[in-house]
Amino acid sequence: MPFYSKRDLEFQLFENLQILELTQLNYFEDHSNETFHMVLEAAEKIAENSLHPLLTEMDRNEPQLVNGKIQVHKGMKKIIQQFGADGWINATFPYVEGGQQLPNTLHMAAGFIFQAANYSASVYPFLTTGAANLIRTFGGKNLIDKFTPNMYSGKWQGTMALTEPDAGSSLSDLSTMAIPTEIEGVYKIKGQKIYISCGDHDACENIIHLMLARIKGAPVGVKGISLFIVPQKRVPDGRPNDVLTEGIYHKMGYKGAPIAHLMIGSNDACEGFLVGEANKGLAYMFQMMNEARVGVGMNAAAIGTAAYYASLAYAKERPQGRKIGDKDPSQPQIPIIQHADVKRMLLFQKSITEGALSLLLYCSKLGDIAHVGDGKEKEEAFLLLDFLTPIAKSYPSEMCCLTTSTAVQVLGGAGYTTDFPVEQYYREARIHPIHEGTTGIHGMDLLGRKATMQEGKALKLFVREISKTILQAKDMPAITSHGEKLEKYLQRAQQTVGYLFTKAGKNPEAYLADATLFLEYTGILTIAWQWLKQGITVQKQLDKGVAETSFYQGKIICLRYFFEYELVKMDGLGKRLMAADMPTLDMQDDWF
Amino acid sequence: MPFYSKRDLEFQLFENLQILELTQLNYFEDHSNETFHMVLEAAEKIAENSLHPLLTEMDRNEPQLVNGKIQVHKGMKKIIQQFGADGWINATFPYVEGGQQLPNTLHMAAGFIFQAANYSASVYPFLTTGAANLIRTFGGKNLIDKFTPNMYSGKWQGTMALTEPDAGSSLSDLSTMAIPTEIEGVYKIKGQKIYISCGDHDACENIIHLMLARIKGAPVGVKGISLFIVPQKRVPDGRPNDVLTEGIYHKMGYKGAPIAHLMIGSNDACEGFLVGEANKGLAYMFQMMNEARVGVGMNAAAIGTAAYYASLAYAKERPQGRKIGDKDPSQPQIPIIQHADVKRMLLFQKSITEGALSLLLYCSKLGDIAHVGDGKEKEEAFLLLDFLTPIAKSYPSEMCCLTTSTAVQVLGGAGYTTDFPVEQYYREARIHPIHEGTTGIHGMDLLGRKATMQEGKALKLFVREISKTILQAKDMPAITSHGEKLEKYLQRAQQTVGYLFTKAGKNPEAYLADATLFLEYTGILTIAWQWLKQGITVQKQLDKGVAETSFYQGKIICLRYFFEYELVKMDGLGKRLMAADMPTLDMQDDWF
Repeated sequence: MPFYSKRDLEFQLFENLQILELTQLNYFEDHSNETFHMVLEAAEKIAENSLHPLLTEMDRNEPQLVNGKIQVHKGMKKIIQQFGADGWINATFPYVEGGQQLPNTLHMAAGFIFQAANYSASVYPFLTTGAANLIRTFGGKNLIDKFTPNMYSGKWQGTMALTEPDAGSSLSDLSTMAIPTEIEGVYKIKGQKIYISCGDHDACENIIHLMLARIKGAPVGVKGISLFIVPQKRVPDGRPNDVLTEGIYHKMGYKGAPIAHLMIGSNDACEGFLVGEANKGLAYMFQMMNEARVGVGMNAAAIGTAAYYASLAYAKERPQGRKIGDKDPSQPQIPIIQHADVKRMLLFQKSITEGALSLLLYCSKLGDIAHVGDGKEKEEAFLLLDFLTPIAKSYPSEMCCLTTSTAVQVLGGAGYTTDFPVEQYYREARIHPIHEGTTGIHGMDLLGRKATMQEGKALKLFVREISKTILQAKDMPAITSHGEKLEKYLQRAQQTVGYLFTKAGKNPEAYLADATLFLEYTGILTIAWQWLKQGITVQKQLDKGVAETSFYQGKIICLRYFFEYELVKMDGLGKRLMAADMPTLDMQDDWF
Repeated sequence: MPFYSKRDLEFQLFENLQILELTQLNYFEDHSNETFHMVLEAAEKIAENSLHPLLTEMDRNEPQLVNGKIQVHKGMKKIIQQFGADGWINATFPYVEGGQQLPNTLHMAAGFIFQAANYSASVYPFLTTGAANLIRTFGGKNLIDKFTPNMYSGKWQGTMALTEPDAGSSLSDLSTMAIPTEIEGVYKIKGQKIYISCGDHDACENIIHLMLARIKGAPVGVKGISLFIVPQKRVPDGRPNDVLTEGIYHKMGYKGAPIAHLMIGSNDACEGFLVGEANKGLAYMFQMMNEARVGVGMNAAAIGTAAYYASLAYAKERPQGRKIGDKDPSQPQIPIIQHADVKRMLLFQKSITEGALSLLLYCSKLGDIAHVGDGKEKEEAFLLLDFLTPIAKSYPSEMCCLTTSTAVQVLGGAGYTTDFPVEQYYREARIHPIHEGTTGIHGMDLLGRKATMQEGKALKLFVREISKTILQAKDMPAITSHGEKLEKYLQRAQQTVGYLFTKAGKNPEAYLADATLFLEYTGILTIAWQWLKQGITVQKQLDKGVAETSFYQGKIICLRYFFEYELVKMDGLGKRLMAADMPTLDMQDDWF
């Protein structure tokens, strides 16, 4: 059963996003249409041959903590080694570090394929990439040499160790302690970390934690947080480093990836290595976090895509019922895809997942330009990406809980059983609105920080880019009306933001009380914009009279669907955002 | 941890719904305030002492098919026997049949407590009640005497056996065959049934299937469907009746209740007993189905309620973060319930679950009046209930998928783990938009049948009842504005229906294409109406200057919340329903 559409991914990258433009940047100059396609084909191969076959098995045989060690599915070791051997873990890093200078956009596209095939399995190597990236970006040469080669090869696992029992959304409260030793850069670490993805397992020989801790005497709050490398086993001799696995979390979904509860330095024998400067840990982490957050959006879109294709395959094959007005029970039943309501459920999934994918790849491209581009283009890409990040993280995360639910609904009773994969996708999708910052946190980030930073410069860029797309669409007769419609919604959105800003100074709590709704509102606008972009790309092809019309026709219907069924949701949200009544502020704790 | 609110349930029944009015009907004349409270207290006792303690266990140890027999949790036998011994299974039936003539409304309220405590466990006795009700209503005295006593006592399980591999939503296609024997009323049954809840298990001594089948030579389609009693073991001698358990479905949630795949008459040795007249099976079933459908809505509301209280308890205890504008990390963290966004998530859950409960109890009361009332009141109650049934089934079912999701979100990472019950509620809630007719089926039922039946008489009744509530509210200064707002939405809804009706004759497919959206649209209006009703009840108390204000204040905030955050969703839905563009009809199968 297909778990993604190669045709759509190629459309998104090569036709809609014009990914080949990136090869004009020096860093990517060796790349070409050919290398990009090779990367995608290689990704598809691993996904089909190694990842997807374990999808169900890994869900049914979840990791277990046995004698202080987490045991994961036996197949993971080979998969991680293959990721290492094929160069996926450090694919985007410079040649001089053994990487391939692959655009992050391509890495994300490959990740999309992996995640759609088997989200749990994809987690391991992607975490290592993120952790290694922190070391190579902020660590000194000795740390890079000591840790990264075995991470790149897949021999060692990398993690991000942030959360503590008292510090989840509120990282400023973290209390893991780092005490200087006589060796410069080496600290004794003591504390505990919870919810650490891949925090311990037996598919790698060592676990390298990128851990936030507070150097003794450091300022309270976020200004006193430093970043450390804390290996599970000491390097190079492999002795234990006093990082004990206290527990494993059993969870609703993506059961194949273990989540650990770690005790660090319980015997005062844990050593950690300061990365970069003291007290800059959170800043370092956040520079990487943007990528991780776009990555979470991608995970969600990938799971949503896999569920969409599972439900599409079922809808094409399952006969049930007859057309409205044709109830003759002696006639054969029709495949359910022919019912308008089933088409609606499929179009909902298609419009959300392809709209989200479009945004996520667009953000990835901005990330590449922000990373290795030049001048004003680089600066603007950075700013726009910063603005879009909470949307790119949250819109797919929230909406793919709904699209996977719709996939279950297409299958009906069958979808609720473990005989089909959609119930697993439904459970797996649910993590994304939570990790890497909850939706509520991202709402406050968007309205409280991103919308106002640099005197609204990022917001203005966002509006400018949407306006460009609107202008283009209005020039194309077949989609003029969609351009005009989006223009109206954009204007209304600007009024809404203007109104909210008037609250900001007077009453910050009221200003931010509905930040989550504002995030949803802006998310819908953003995805409508992405659909209009796709519509322009498609309409150009149709206007040329291309032979392959069914794919493009499907896109145009999807554009219409999104504008008819999703964009209109801004009406109610907008009305609420402009309203004066604030029941959530008036509600008292003891009235519940 | 509390899984429901006794205070709210009592408010709903005694203050808002004026349930005691029912004691004026002859059938209920022996009941009183006292007996009703006794019933609720007894229900709470079983729920707390017997059902809730097994909630997690039953999820972790799901039923297994061993040597052709389904084995369920060992505790179920005692629970079912207790339900039998305490008279719950036939509580609503007449005294002459051993029942207590309890209003269905009270039985539903008790069911709400059971379902909130442990949905899986509650399924068994409620299915038996439904099956026994079919026998006693449509069966002859010999069938009643033969089967019902052991069902009432909890010795035997009752089921509804409708679905077949080729007949799920399309019941007209069912093909299980019934061949007459020389004994009148006795048939040889042959076929297979899938997804049969409690279709086999070892907590009862026999399983009594109320099964739809087609008598040989009967007309095709729904007009040739008859209703049979098909026991698993013959009565009275207990020999096998050739009903074999072919399989068990493993499913995402409510794992404690087994769902079976049954082969009937594989050895030509299955006998079934015709209930009532031949070819009237579907009509019989549907007379019972309305109750079952309101029951499903109740299940959903109950699970949503349990999740709400679990997340509320967590929000009150979990310290994380600080107030906006008070970021001093040296100050202690505050309980998350103090964050506006968490309050929003709690109010969302509270407004949906309490709004749904209000509607469901209202429908149950209509059911009681329709059942044992008189004259015009009875007739109108029947008609209004018929109209409201698809809403009462679907609104809570769809929305409690979202409220349980929100409960998970309140807990964050903790909510995604099996350490807390909210992930289980999330999985359990997902069945309800599927069983007893999918949401899509109910959308078509509401728009295609209920809105137009008897020349729109039911629809007019619905509008009349809402208008009454609006008039009352407009007379009360504190909630006048809410009355006026609902009036505007009601007027717009009438215009929307009018517009849709113009499509009905011309293009039935276009008319019904967005029936699911129409159901959602009408559902929001209906729950807003229920909140306005509650608001009136509460405001009367507040105007009197009652001492207990916190409960009532919470209700008023919730009314405001629903109008501010939920009612406005009708704007976008209404716009869509009035639109001419029909992408779901234009989409071709091969364009996906």
